[in-house]
Amino acid sequence: METDGGAGNVVRNKKLMLKDYIKGFPKESDLHLTTESIELKVPQGSNAILVKVLYLSIDPYQYIRSTKIEKPGYFSSYSPGSVIASYGVGRVVESGHSDFQKGDLVWGTTGWEEYSLITEPETLFKIQRSDVPLSYYLGVLGMPGLTAYVGFYEFCAPKKGETVFISSAIGAVGQLVGQLAKLMGCYVVGSAGNPEKVDLLKNKLGFDDAFNYKEEKNLNDTLKRHFPGGIDICFDNVGGKMLDAVLLNMKLKGRIAHCGMISQYTLDEPEGIKNMMNIIYKRLRLEGFVVTDHYHLFPKFLDFMLPCVREGKIVYVEDISEALESCPAALVGLFNSSNLGKKVVIVAAE
Amino acid sequence: METDGGAGNVVRNKKLMLKDYIKGFPKESDLHLTTESIELKVPQGSNAILVKVLYLSIDPYQYIRSTKIEKPGYFSSYSPGSVIASYGVGRVVESGHSDFQKGDLVWGTTGWEEYSLITEPETLFKIQRSDVPLSYYLGVLGMPGLTAYVGFYEFCAPKKGETVFISSAIGAVGQLVGQLAKLMGCYVVGSAGNPEKVDLLKNKLGFDDAFNYKEEKNLNDTLKRHFPGGIDICFDNVGGKMLDAVLLNMKLKGRIAHCGMISQYTLDEPEGIKNMMNIIYKRLRLEGFVVTDHYHLFPKFLDFMLPCVREGKIVYVEDISEALESCPAALVGLFNSSNLGKKVVIVAAE
Repeated sequence: METDGGAGNVVRNKKLMLKDYIKGFPKESDLHLTTESIELKVPQGSNAILVKVLYLSIDPYQYIRSTKIEKPGYFSSYSPGSVIASYGVGRVVESGHSDFQKGDLVWGTTGWEEYSLITEPETLFKIQRSDVPLSYYLGVLGMPGLTAYVGFYEFCAPKKGETVFISSAIGAVGQLVGQLAKLMGCYVVGSAGNPEKVDLLKNKLGFDDAFNYKEEKNLNDTLKRHFPGGIDICFDNVGGKMLDAVLLNMKLKGRIAHCGMISQYTLDEPEGIKNMMNIIYKRLRLEGFVVTDHYHLFPKFLDFMLPCVREGKIVYVEDISEALESCPAALVGLFNSSNLGKKVVIVAAE
Repeated sequence: METDGGAGNVVRNKKLMLKDYIKGFPKESDLHLTTESIELKVPQGSNAILVKVLYLSIDPYQYIRSTKIEKPGYFSSYSPGSVIASYGVGRVVESGHSDFQKGDLVWGTTGWEEYSLITEPETLFKIQRSDVPLSYYLGVLGMPGLTAYVGFYEFCAPKKGETVFISSAIGAVGQLVGQLAKLMGCYVVGSAGNPEKVDLLKNKLGFDDAFNYKEEKNLNDTLKRHFPGGIDICFDNVGGKMLDAVLLNMKLKGRIAHCGMISQYTLDEPEGIKNMMNIIYKRLRLEGFVVTDHYHLFPKFLDFMLPCVREGKIVYVEDISEALESCPAALVGLFNSSNLGKKVVIVAAE
């Protein structure tokens, strides 16, 4: 039994550990649930913060960090036997840092566990209690939200009336990029992996159109059909064959912002991109970005996004499951199109 | 016999025509020499300009335009049976345009022929007679020079002390990019296709180092050896396997300017680029450009480059052959590493 007690209390701490580096498609058995005990206090004299985890975020980068693939400049791999680091929302149980007090709600880098001891307080953000669901700090108001904001406004250089294609468009980031593009007056089409997602994109998220890439025989033809005049902006979450077809359909001086390439992560060897000459023919700009380089924009982002959410200008589709034990299935779900929207796991009740 | 006579004179005009769209590696027999006659006058009432061709430029784009490959946004294909359009230096024989007078020296879009009738005067630039070789207006002071200037300063965003890799580094553009990078205080390495070129890069053009890619077994290892700390800037003339190795060796926030992909032009199907994830890991920017978008910078470029050439700060290696008939071999030479420097053909004496 857990208790929410004061310093000195020892409680159960369930954790999900990486068994060994994942190769290929992830399986639930790649992770191992252990139960440890934890004393509900921070080491004396440290500035660490002990957080009770309420919500956890399931993201593709957790898969990437679980592989041994060389990823220079990116986050390091998790060590086999260590807990999966992850964005989470939690409540401060005890704090050795003057910026955080017991009872504070926070989001930031936690772990797939019931309690996380945060030794790098700069990775935590305090949540000013608001009228939006706490889980939103893992999505529309958190890392994926900032990713969409930075990726679209800083890297896509969008203009009113331009045509925008978003791959993996119902994902945590894609659904926001699409809505930001609509707010700017762009024509927006997204791809997704099943009919229910396509329906959501068109009828709930306000995309002009959407398609199920799994039903398309020739992605070049598909994109030509949706963008007879070509694509000004591609927000790429997928890479691979979709990216190759996108290159064929870009307009002159088009921009591709590379946020992810989820179609490639589980392959032994990445697919080759063949239409690179289009970069020259059409004077394209391709740019990769990682959101952690842009956290200085977080306050500006929140000033923009929080009112949008409150006023219903931006909606957000979440796929929420319960219990720490559901994290492995949720991770697998990122790769088989079964998650419907931003995947969040509730670990404990508020 | 040709004569340099006034209006009404009819002279021989040898021309090189495209037989049929070229497929794969070019052969001299892909072109056909014909002899026509031409009246040395411009159509009455037109603003055309008749130019006697003195020097012709041999460039990879002439191959691209001789194929049927779809190249949206780029120059159209030559029609089979038409003369090869090409940059050239010439002397005005007769002019219907007030900006050009008989006797003027010009450079711009001519053809692989002895006389070109220019019907789009905006494609011609007048040469203010200078103390540099006229052929330089096809190289260091012409289109390749502007390509290097725009590509390096506008697309590579260079900073002093950065590391720069140039593929096809002894080519018309590459040798200039390397020298511009050295003038800025960068560390510069180039690749080329034979030992003589490597020697020129190191001992005449001032590159810090150079290698013969044909002697390297593993381009990734080669680049790691030359850039143990990684590459800030790649000026890509080659694409394909070299580009794939470059992606593995780029530094964080590196830039790749795509000027050409000569390794790919003659292939039935382009090689696939597999290391695209590095664009995200390392937050890379890849950008393609075509020099014709930047001709408004030509006066600024010439103000910079002409003094550099005069003062010997920039040197230029040309490979000059004589007679229109040598153009087909020169074109083939672009693809088998046999040209040594910017390829120019002398068609007529000044």
